Amino acid sequence: MSTDVYQKRWRRARELMDAAGVSALFLVPTTDLYYMTGFRGHIGDRLTAFVLLPERRDVSPAFFLYPAFEKAAINRELLESAECVPYRDGEDPYRALTALFPEPDGLIAVDTRLWSGVLLSLESAMPRARWLDAEKIIAPMRLQKDAAERALLEEAQSRAGRALMELFAWGLTGRTERETAEKLTGFCAGAGLERADWGPVVASGENSAIPHHESGDKVIGKGEPVVIDFGGVYAGYQADITRTPVTGAASGEFRAVYETVLAANEAAFRAARVGASSASVDAAARDVIARAGYGDYFTHRLGHGIGLDIHEAPYMVGGSALSLAPGMAFSDEPGIYLPGKFGVRIEDILFMGGETAERLTAFPRELREL
Amino acid sequence: MSTDVYQKRWRRARELMDAAGVSALFLVPTTDLYYMTGFRGHIGDRLTAFVLLPERRDVSPAFFLYPAFEKAAINRELLESAECVPYRDGEDPYRALTALFPEPDGLIAVDTRLWSGVLLSLESAMPRARWLDAEKIIAPMRLQKDAAERALLEEAQSRAGRALMELFAWGLTGRTERETAEKLTGFCAGAGLERADWGPVVASGENSAIPHHESGDKVIGKGEPVVIDFGGVYAGYQADITRTPVTGAASGEFRAVYETVLAANEAAFRAARVGASSASVDAAARDVIARAGYGDYFTHRLGHGIGLDIHEAPYMVGGSALSLAPGMAFSDEPGIYLPGKFGVRIEDILFMGGETAERLTAFPRELREL
Repeated sequence: MSTDVYQKRWRRARELMDAAGVSALFLVPTTDLYYMTGFRGHIGDRLTAFVLLPERRDVSPAFFLYPAFEKAAINRELLESAECVPYRDGEDPYRALTALFPEPDGLIAVDTRLWSGVLLSLESAMPRARWLDAEKIIAPMRLQKDAAERALLEEAQSRAGRALMELFAWGLTGRTERETAEKLTGFCAGAGLERADWGPVVASGENSAIPHHESGDKVIGKGEPVVIDFGGVYAGYQADITRTPVTGAASGEFRAVYETVLAANEAAFRAARVGASSASVDAAARDVIARAGYGDYFTHRLGHGIGLDIHEAPYMVGGSALSLAPGMAFSDEPGIYLPGKFGVRIEDILFMGGETAERLTAFPRELREL
Repeated sequence: MSTDVYQKRWRRARELMDAAGVSALFLVPTTDLYYMTGFRGHIGDRLTAFVLLPERRDVSPAFFLYPAFEKAAINRELLESAECVPYRDGEDPYRALTALFPEPDGLIAVDTRLWSGVLLSLESAMPRARWLDAEKIIAPMRLQKDAAERALLEEAQSRAGRALMELFAWGLTGRTERETAEKLTGFCAGAGLERADWGPVVASGENSAIPHHESGDKVIGKGEPVVIDFGGVYAGYQADITRTPVTGAASGEFRAVYETVLAANEAAFRAARVGASSASVDAAARDVIARAGYGDYFTHRLGHGIGLDIHEAPYMVGGSALSLAPGMAFSDEPGIYLPGKFGVRIEDILFMGGETAERLTAFPRELREL
């Protein structure tokens, strides 16, 4: 993203900060920091911190505190727009950090993924400050994705779909789950995706009834269903697809369950309209499955938001009052898991482009007998 | 590790909790939780929590709160020793969690890596409770590694060394840094190491002067130094090795710098004795480098502890008063980085077995001209 995009996000964040009475926004190297600055890093034992302040004449608008020897890792957009403050190993970064907050008794919004150990240290060092989860500021912004973000999510899905196509051509019967997972990871890399920090789930036969099964040494037999749930990262944006092909001919019972899950996936897609609650989208899929008699076997929520994180707002789950709005992206992934028998999950990514949802996942959903 | 090991750790943790006046220890899926229970998981949007209580007759000694559909991921040792409490998507896990703390006005030790967003929610939900960084309880335990942990760290180093040997045999000249990094990752997998969530750093020519250079498209030329810093995970324990070979004949200047770094590495090894401060070990290496005239170019601390985390206590850094004690494991990795020219880093893992340090890294340290 260009510097303009980040400046626009800073302006919006400041509006939200003003509305919430926040005197400083404090982020560490998470996807929230990447979203706000383009800085790619990981949380580690050396404190790295970004502080965004309300616009005022007497102070810099933003600071970036970093370990001096890591300077080469700072991206141009951040270098140009924030005042960068290095510290050396052995110096106390907390002293430098607390000095960056202009109001020691203000309300400071802290990165939702900041380590609690760091927050507890800050709470001791700044006993008069009050602390707010920065998710209150950042999540509403990230929830509303623009056309550029939509394009990156779609490209990520498309590349993941290409990798899955290659996996199907390679064949599953006689492979172990683990080697299948590794092969798929290789195809994803070949399709230009960075490696995801989860999965892939390759769960065959009875294992397919375990929603987040860890791929193991089991050999995939003939005529077995295989839940394949995987992703990868494209320009920071996550891919996430699940399909459940069968190696050979599907049984009648499997076919009936598959068609139920597919109908549930479709029902959620149709229910996803601007203004609808996320609970109602979850319910649309759940009703289809319950009516078919499998209600007890759809054991997880319908879906999760997706973007820079694999799981982020909005969550499609019972009890959620959140209303769908333009720019939201989330998974539609109903499943039925029959313990000791098999499971089926079909997952697409949906995007609220206008009044209704668009599918960002082009990969065919129909039952595939490999 | 066996259930006995975890039970022993629980007893020790309870002693430390009693001494600190802690009424509950609250961990989430981090290496601290793995250390205490053997549960392998990752922090995500679905709350997963382990609560250890002081031993009393009227309550279970430990609880594990988890998303119901993830039951298959719970290891036997944890299932058998804690009261496992499932919750379903859509139910509020915070309500279940706060009910697990027997003293709502007690001092609760929270996982140092717990997300701040979760801590802030708990602080609101339990306004009378006080909160402590659980590092105060767990770090002293993890700092003191036993023979089984030492053996796993040594095995991890040995396997990483095997992978590096294969990389040297494969050859570096004419390869890009990125393909070299990928090849090394493959050799590590072949040596039975799980993938590390960092590196490998492959930094050639001028790039070797950037301590944490991100491996890129640069082709490794003839006669270039190559800083190779990498690892992998064996049975949960981290490997970490850095070597700086040259592709072809080393220049006189390079050779002088290399020998200085090697002497600094050796000086730190000799300085690492029980009772010595970690600052003095850092200083031992730094003095060698300063005396050779390169003091300004050793831009980072000497080393970091290593175990289940790649960076953990004890840190070998100026200003640290921590005294070396039996069972500590840490890196000895001095470096000299000459901007625009080249850099050298030589990293071993040391273990305080008795009065003096042992090297867990058997890989040759001498200058290697490939």
